[in-house]
Amino acid sequence: MRAVILAAGQGRRIGASEKGKPKPLLRLLGLPLIVRSILTLREAGIKNIVVVTGYKGQMIREQLGDGRRFGVKISYADNPDWQRGNAVSLHCAKALTGDRFILVMSDHVFSPEIIKRLAHKKIQTGEAILAVDKSPDEYIDMDDATKVYIENNRIVSIGKGLRKYNAVDCGAFLLTRDIFQVIEETIKEGKDTLNDVMDRVAKKGLLRAFDIGDEYWIDVDTEEALKHAERLLLKQLIKPTDGFISRVLNRPLSTRITRWLVNTNLTPNVLSIISFFICIISAALFSIGSYLSFLVGGLLAQFTSVLDGCDGEVARLKFQTSSYGAWLDAVLDRYGDAAIVLGIVYGLWSYTGEPRVWIVGYIALMGSLISSYTATKYDEIIRKKRSSNWRFGRDTRLFLVMVCAIINELYLFLVLIGIVTNLVSIRRLYIMRTSS
Amino acid sequence: MRAVILAAGQGRRIGASEKGKPKPLLRLLGLPLIVRSILTLREAGIKNIVVVTGYKGQMIREQLGDGRRFGVKISYADNPDWQRGNAVSLHCAKALTGDRFILVMSDHVFSPEIIKRLAHKKIQTGEAILAVDKSPDEYIDMDDATKVYIENNRIVSIGKGLRKYNAVDCGAFLLTRDIFQVIEETIKEGKDTLNDVMDRVAKKGLLRAFDIGDEYWIDVDTEEALKHAERLLLKQLIKPTDGFISRVLNRPLSTRITRWLVNTNLTPNVLSIISFFICIISAALFSIGSYLSFLVGGLLAQFTSVLDGCDGEVARLKFQTSSYGAWLDAVLDRYGDAAIVLGIVYGLWSYTGEPRVWIVGYIALMGSLISSYTATKYDEIIRKKRSSNWRFGRDTRLFLVMVCAIINELYLFLVLIGIVTNLVSIRRLYIMRTSS
Repeated sequence: MRAVILAAGQGRRIGASEKGKPKPLLRLLGLPLIVRSILTLREAGIKNIVVVTGYKGQMIREQLGDGRRFGVKISYADNPDWQRGNAVSLHCAKALTGDRFILVMSDHVFSPEIIKRLAHKKIQTGEAILAVDKSPDEYIDMDDATKVYIENNRIVSIGKGLRKYNAVDCGAFLLTRDIFQVIEETIKEGKDTLNDVMDRVAKKGLLRAFDIGDEYWIDVDTEEALKHAERLLLKQLIKPTDGFISRVLNRPLSTRITRWLVNTNLTPNVLSIISFFICIISAALFSIGSYLSFLVGGLLAQFTSVLDGCDGEVARLKFQTSSYGAWLDAVLDRYGDAAIVLGIVYGLWSYTGEPRVWIVGYIALMGSLISSYTATKYDEIIRKKRSSNWRFGRDTRLFLVMVCAIINELYLFLVLIGIVTNLVSIRRLYIMRTSS
Repeated sequence: MRAVILAAGQGRRIGASEKGKPKPLLRLLGLPLIVRSILTLREAGIKNIVVVTGYKGQMIREQLGDGRRFGVKISYADNPDWQRGNAVSLHCAKALTGDRFILVMSDHVFSPEIIKRLAHKKIQTGEAILAVDKSPDEYIDMDDATKVYIENNRIVSIGKGLRKYNAVDCGAFLLTRDIFQVIEETIKEGKDTLNDVMDRVAKKGLLRAFDIGDEYWIDVDTEEALKHAERLLLKQLIKPTDGFISRVLNRPLSTRITRWLVNTNLTPNVLSIISFFICIISAALFSIGSYLSFLVGGLLAQFTSVLDGCDGEVARLKFQTSSYGAWLDAVLDRYGDAAIVLGIVYGLWSYTGEPRVWIVGYIALMGSLISSYTATKYDEIIRKKRSSNWRFGRDTRLFLVMVCAIINELYLFLVLIGIVTNLVSIRRLYIMRTSS
């Protein structure tokens, strides 16, 4: 399946021209808006993309190239009449689209899930399907939004000025080639916006609504909307599996750091490695065996715990997630965990000279590593069945390191880790047994 | 889909009646032949089974019951004329079969894969599909085997006395309800074996061959064949992923133990736990810190390594494999590994008083556990792509424990494990990176 992205407009309301670039090239969390659209389409499985350019089209073409860099194939259509309505832009893509295609706006941010589901809809000749939001969030600018009125899944009227409406147009369509015929008819009547075209389709009873449910989207039309979009995307980074410490402490901090990191060239894997080295420094500090080194080591351990969220966040925001990256992160986390326990044990031993810390540390290390080992399998099999997401995870462990370092009770930390992590694994064995 | 198992015969050639039971109840590696057939069908996804009994039918019914115990539903048909040919037995199942069904003999042992593939074949009205072996192994009794001659995937002739043949009948069929019509015609002519019936189907050009390829099967007709079957099934226990030590030392020993264990009531999970406790005893011996305790500990470590194969072997032979069992085994292995390293470290430390053994032991433990952690993911992603199955696995580690214990060089063991296991994980990270 192909997709068309309309990127011909100037973006007057957002003041793009004053910034010296067309609106599709304005950056949002490290990526130009249009690159985000392209990567969203790619994530939804669409690799053949037609971009319709107009205002400063050359600049956009230079930035995107043939699309290979993004793992897609981009063809271009030019709209010299970009100052006219956006239906004219879509019509420029006529020769490049297939029998059915997705249409999105370059200035809309979508959950890839919306495109994925929309692309899988069945569509009849002459029909058009429009993604709609039945409960738009408060950040949607209702004055500027295109409203629709839906009856039995059919859109009966559409327009910005609609007084009676029950959903909002999200700016993503599934169309067939027949739409070009409708555009030509509409333009002949002197109307040239997509709303006019869709209104015509609606009047024929051929405009269907696709409810996006809880998925996110936003139309980035103003500076304010750009800020909303940033907040919206950052909010998506909170995982439902995040533990307590992660949710209340690490995630709010890591997303703030990520907001800055996305504008650098640091890749997620490099971030994983940096986070690992900070972990090693923390371990080295513990091994010195003085209260001051414990204290700094403990704060650094919590810092690496925060930073540990950033690699995945950057990866998701910049569409750079990979199974290798997730795995590298996991393995480095295990080595980091082991280094911190070894550092603490060595430090405590230098400090107190008591050999029992070695045995306790040994059990803590065993418990910590085996609980990560059991977590992988457990998640695969059990999580689907159970909703509880309480977990004695890495966020909790590293937070506990910091607390115990501050109160100078790192031996207690080892004892706690030794007991709890091993109990966690035994509990998992028990749960798996009773539920299998 | 349903299946019919013919279990009406007496088993004269194997001397079943002298043993006081009908042939389908003769045991092969812990399971009566017919139970093995039932579980093979279940593993192939067939849960609705018709058993045709004859000679000592009551005894078979009492043993099998309604099949719930085996996770299937069994219905029975009785053949009072069991002394006649086996086509008569199949005809007794007429009222109980579906439009298409699998037919197997209770005295044949099959790879479940054969049934699985056979059941997925498309079959036309009137056709019959027969599983054939184009390169029968030397243990197949060619004098007694039913031969077939195949041309273009059609069987043109079938019979025991065939002089020109290019494959052997494996005793597994995919049939349609039409077969009963053919049986009636054949019996009217005074012939009553399945071979006669199939010959008739072949003459109509409706008997197709299904090549079983490399999958195993055997017809258990004599005492000798029973012994062959045992060897054949034990040979299947060798995994292609077995490491070197496992292949040349552990597996030959463990299959011998398993051959005995299948006749006990010990479940695979109980065996995993027994093996784990022997591991703990080995660790406790190491921790005593004398050469004698090292020696016995080392031998016990190797013994637990051998025993570690038995749980899986018993599970596979008795159709008791489960994802929980595999997981329990893996987690107990990790705790066993950790216990042995801790035992060695403690023992060496008591023996030498040197604190460096703690650090080395710590690195060995970390490497050992993390390499198990990385193995899981690595296998998932990489093994499919690569054929090499060299591995510094548990079999190698525990063998090395024994060797180092014998030569009283357990410190060397810790150093080796510490270096090799960590290198293995780093190598995996590298391979995953370059191949992703």
